Amino acid sequence: MKAARIHGYNEPIMIDDVADPQITDPTDVIIKVGGAGVCRTDLHILEGVWKDALADPVLPYTIGHENAGWVEQVGSGVKHLKPGDPVILHPLMSCGLCPACRAGQDMHCIAGRFPGLDGTDGGYAEYMKTSVRAVVPLSPDIDPVALAPFADAGITAYHAVKKLVPLLYPGSFVVVIGIGGLGHFAIQILRALTPATIIAVDTHKARLAFAERLGAHYGVLAGSDGGLKDVVGIAPRGADVVFDFVGEHCTPAVAPSMLAKGGTYSVIGYGGQVSTPTLDFVNREINIVGNLVGTYNELVELMELHRQGRVSISAQQYPLADAPDVLKMLDRGEIIGRAVLVP
Amino acid sequence: MKAARIHGYNEPIMIDDVADPQITDPTDVIIKVGGAGVCRTDLHILEGVWKDALADPVLPYTIGHENAGWVEQVGSGVKHLKPGDPVILHPLMSCGLCPACRAGQDMHCIAGRFPGLDGTDGGYAEYMKTSVRAVVPLSPDIDPVALAPFADAGITAYHAVKKLVPLLYPGSFVVVIGIGGLGHFAIQILRALTPATIIAVDTHKARLAFAERLGAHYGVLAGSDGGLKDVVGIAPRGADVVFDFVGEHCTPAVAPSMLAKGGTYSVIGYGGQVSTPTLDFVNREINIVGNLVGTYNELVELMELHRQGRVSISAQQYPLADAPDVLKMLDRGEIIGRAVLVP
Amino acid sequence: MKAARIHGYNEPIMIDDVADPQITDPTDVIIKVGGAGVCRTDLHILEGVWKDALADPVLPYTIGHENAGWVEQVGSGVKHLKPGDPVILHPLMSCGLCPACRAGQDMHCIAGRFPGLDGTDGGYAEYMKTSVRAVVPLSPDIDPVALAPFADAGITAYHAVKKLVPLLYPGSFVVVIGIGGLGHFAIQILRALTPATIIAVDTHKARLAFAERLGAHYGVLAGSDGGLKDVVGIAPRGADVVFDFVGEHCTPAVAPSMLAKGGTYSVIGYGGQVSTPTLDFVNREINIVGNLVGTYNELVELMELHRQGRVSISAQQYPLADAPDVLKMLDRGEIIGRAVLVP
Amino acid sequence: MKAARIHGYNEPIMIDDVADPQITDPTDVIIKVGGAGVCRTDLHILEGVWKDALADPVLPYTIGHENAGWVEQVGSGVKHLKPGDPVILHPLMSCGLCPACRAGQDMHCIAGRFPGLDGTDGGYAEYMKTSVRAVVPLSPDIDPVALAPFADAGITAYHAVKKLVPLLYPGSFVVVIGIGGLGHFAIQILRALTPATIIAVDTHKARLAFAERLGAHYGVLAGSDGGLKDVVGIAPRGADVVFDFVGEHCTPAVAPSMLAKGGTYSVIGYGGQVSTPTLDFVNREINIVGNLVGTYNELVELMELHRQGRVSISAQQYPLADAPDVLKMLDRGEIIGRAVLVP
Repeated sequence: MKAARIHGYNEPIMIDDVADPQITDPTDVIIKVGGAGVCRTDLHILEGVWKDALADPVLPYTIGHENAGWVEQVGSGVKHLKPGDPVILHPLMSCGLCPACRAGQDMHCIAGRFPGLDGTDGGYAEYMKTSVRAVVPLSPDIDPVALAPFADAGITAYHAVKKLVPLLYPGSFVVVIGIGGLGHFAIQILRALTPATIIAVDTHKARLAFAERLGAHYGVLAGSDGGLKDVVGIAPRGADVVFDFVGEHCTPAVAPSMLAKGGTYSVIGYGGQVSTPTLDFVNREINIVGNLVGTYNELVELMELHRQGRVSISAQQYPLADAPDVLKMLDRGEIIGRAVLVP
Repeated sequence: MKAARIHGYNEPIMIDDVADPQITDPTDVIIKVGGAGVCRTDLHILEGVWKDALADPVLPYTIGHENAGWVEQVGSGVKHLKPGDPVILHPLMSCGLCPACRAGQDMHCIAGRFPGLDGTDGGYAEYMKTSVRAVVPLSPDIDPVALAPFADAGITAYHAVKKLVPLLYPGSFVVVIGIGGLGHFAIQILRALTPATIIAVDTHKARLAFAERLGAHYGVLAGSDGGLKDVVGIAPRGADVVFDFVGEHCTPAVAPSMLAKGGTYSVIGYGGQVSTPTLDFVNREINIVGNLVGTYNELVELMELHRQGRVSISAQQYPLADAPDVLKMLDRGEIIGRAVLVP
Repeated sequence: MKAARIHGYNEPIMIDDVADPQITDPTDVIIKVGGAGVCRTDLHILEGVWKDALADPVLPYTIGHENAGWVEQVGSGVKHLKPGDPVILHPLMSCGLCPACRAGQDMHCIAGRFPGLDGTDGGYAEYMKTSVRAVVPLSPDIDPVALAPFADAGITAYHAVKKLVPLLYPGSFVVVIGIGGLGHFAIQILRALTPATIIAVDTHKARLAFAERLGAHYGVLAGSDGGLKDVVGIAPRGADVVFDFVGEHCTPAVAPSMLAKGGTYSVIGYGGQVSTPTLDFVNREINIVGNLVGTYNELVELMELHRQGRVSISAQQYPLADAPDVLKMLDRGEIIGRAVLVP
Repeated sequence: MKAARIHGYNEPIMIDDVADPQITDPTDVIIKVGGAGVCRTDLHILEGVWKDALADPVLPYTIGHENAGWVEQVGSGVKHLKPGDPVILHPLMSCGLCPACRAGQDMHCIAGRFPGLDGTDGGYAEYMKTSVRAVVPLSPDIDPVALAPFADAGITAYHAVKKLVPLLYPGSFVVVIGIGGLGHFAIQILRALTPATIIAVDTHKARLAFAERLGAHYGVLAGSDGGLKDVVGIAPRGADVVFDFVGEHCTPAVAPSMLAKGGTYSVIGYGGQVSTPTLDFVNREINIVGNLVGTYNELVELMELHRQGRVSISAQQYPLADAPDVLKMLDRGEIIGRAVLVP
């Protein structure tokens, strides 16, 4: 089959011919990939950002961690799935037995494998293998292709928002920095889950208009101050929560300054560095919350929101063969919403 | 009366003769100071660390924000206090009417005044004025003098611990960095409120022995790596929570590295800077929590813990006139537990 | 002035001429009543339901605990209010100093007085007295008359819903029993604060149609089984939450049967009795949550929701002199939404 | 092998010769039973209390749902267990794939089987079969026999207490009704996890003395008023939490009366009926919380508490053949702590 693989850092990915994946464990599931979302993390993988954090995975491997499609084949222990079922995949293959899995914290599984990221083959391919615990069945009548971006961009935005729902009541101000693949989900999810007033911040005017169509109450163009002055103009005591879907360039410096006393800075994007005096954590009692994808149940809840029509997806489809070009477009900021590769 | 006042930054405080405070508002309460705790924040005030954060308060003023004593005089609207009552003071004069006060978040009062810190006269004096909402009555038979350190060091440690109790279950590891005035309370409070395994970290062996007498399960001498290697040796998957009562020098860099996946770094000490890649917040989903003193009810709860004999104080008393020297001793690390000035 | 007072249980209220209220305490505020909502609790007061629970209050007194209007006069200690300001009143006069007030639990104030309920004169009158802590200022351009029902019906529904927001995620089912004064608020608040699927249950078809206009996803006519069969038809594993705004007749028996495993029965209406085997609490791990009005901040948040246009009120106005008749209409189920008396 | 089985309701159990259990599924684990705790639920099973709640299970089957022992044999998919490993068993065989399992709510598994209760053979036998997800490995040097009571009595007490830890701060009063198998664990767990003041209530003086040795601060003999007057004498504003390990006779009537405003009645024992006016849920805003065993992780945490020496067990061992007699002794209140059957 065809698969788009990383062969070296800071090199383009290559479209290779590789062997089809095989069932080797009773809990394995092989998926015919319908769509594989293209994520900024794919760029970061190619840049080597994850190299050390993931203990230097063996190259080459197939990237793509945001996948949906149809069940192709199941292991002997899998009883509730059959070939042809439309499915969307939780990104992690979790064990189901460790303390984290037992507590529903799938992403902290001590034995988890992360296809498309940690050296395990992912979804930029015609087929991929995952485990039964990662498979979310969809309604039989649903076309999974366009849904792929929910599998990582969507679940991550949902996870970040849901964790902070208790902080977001009527009168709260929430800032969403970066209206890309994740941010455009975050705005819709905030509207569905909270009554907070939403301020979108981005460096592109077109994205602010997009944000307002999705439900943001205000759009702030991030100029040289990252939007700080305008945010404080709208929310004089500061924002209760800032979701940062960029996490690099100036945003980790600006975001804490936008916070109200007791406010919370939620980090989702990455690549930069938080540099904040400890005095700020004391004098204003601010907090920082990290986010790593989300839980299986959160993906199920998000699919329910989509089913109800409360969260829609903005995605364009490209052939798998275009993967190298699509990654370049993403890097140049030319993708609005999310790009999906279709094998 | 005598009062120890700041006249300029990076200068010694001076013992001055000043007018006694007067009742001017129906909710005022004048306290005869029994004891005033000496805090690292007093050093930071003198160093000018708080100058900008507090909008450049007018000098001179009396410092001392950790006070206990007896009611001397009350305003016309104060009905449940009478002269002679032993009391301990919450550090803030809060309004009782703003959204934060209404939610019990006394420290975030939009109209709060902070005697001894923001230019309002504090407790390094024979008498001080506060408001009725700051006064915690003590049992009639209690001598408030030795209790002063609970008013800031104690409440702050209690607040920081209580906020994270839900993270501290049997099998959790918690690190306490800095076994000084606040840290020695934190260990006792952790023992009273949680079943977690406690690792004390300090640069002085004597303080580690002190920590173990107070209930710490392990003591780690912070060498050139800030104790990181030894902490990970004890808690191989990392600590669930790190309480940092230093917040400067190497601790803000080391503390996040001590955390388990999903762990929380609680900042109480200050003076340094957090510098952590956003990738760490994502890859390990770690969190940082700020802390600003605590609530009135938390001070009441802490006094109840003391009454039950579960939290004791380690303090030495000095005459008010020695305030300048005591501050120097604190700066040199020569105070074990807490110093209290007695007018 | 005119005031509608209770003189005896199971007797009609009477319109009396009484003295105007006077400022006697520095924190007193006298309100010119704009509107006073008519509540089922007023009926229960007249039936003597509250007689013992409130230690047999001295009769006669003016009822009416759901009030809005304008500031008429303030005590010497009140600085942020002036005559003519439009306001809505939190039902309780709380002390601001007890542990409950300190924690934001206004309704559990150990020294609270409840005008219109506990023998303190309420708002079925031209003027009424409350304390500064009960007064919520409104925007200068707002007419407070129509807003009165938010002061008790609204805040109570908001409190009940907000407490259970963590249980209500996409895919949750929530049942609202009783689409009257409180229930019609609850449906709107559920839509604003949660993504849950809402099933309205009532004995009147017109009220179900009303509920659906307000945002309920399903309407169930409560027949002889209280709607149980139809609810389970819609939510096969049961409801995650049942809000019961009736609390008498068959509802306390039926509501627990509607619950999913681990579900929660929220009691707001009263008059009947919960009779549930302890085995049900064990075998299905169900819960019951009580509700008493709400907090000051919750009333502020609700007014913000109203300002944003997310919660509207359905009320009809009647002259104060009609109070006895309006109570009879309420008792006969002839009021849709809420009745408001206008002096 | 020998097994003690129920053949009919309100009949004694019988010691039968039955076939040994066999591995039939890759996730099966067969346990050589070391000890099987004798629980009041076993009496309730024999009385038919669970008959309807469990859809009339087919008789006969082996009872015993509180088990520890050694791994005897494992299915092909089980990798981390081997014959001879000492283990304690979570009571439920959960699926690991449903929304409840995914959220760590093992007991609400939609496909769970409950050996010893729902018709699946339990642990009053030489061997029993469970699934891999139910097996908690113990340290190699531990004798599992005496630990069996942790598997149900312990976990249930732990679950009930842990859920309410946020309500139990210094100054809180907590009542524990019934100092039997579960209650004697609850007192120790409350001491380990909370700083609350503990009032033990029982009808036997010897059990109160036992409770005080385990850490209860007060013992109240339940007379004709169920101990109400004495509890209120100790806790004048009422108890913040009442844990009821009896749940029948007078306790469901008395427990709510012991509560402070906003207090919580936690139901663990069963057999009786809660009968409380809805007005009580409103006027005092009280709550009732149900409890069904606990989660796998909670059992792990409890074993850690035991390892640390903070929770000890009071149990007597009897031969399996004595099962019928031991059940009678339990029914007559002659067991202090817990009885364990040893095959």
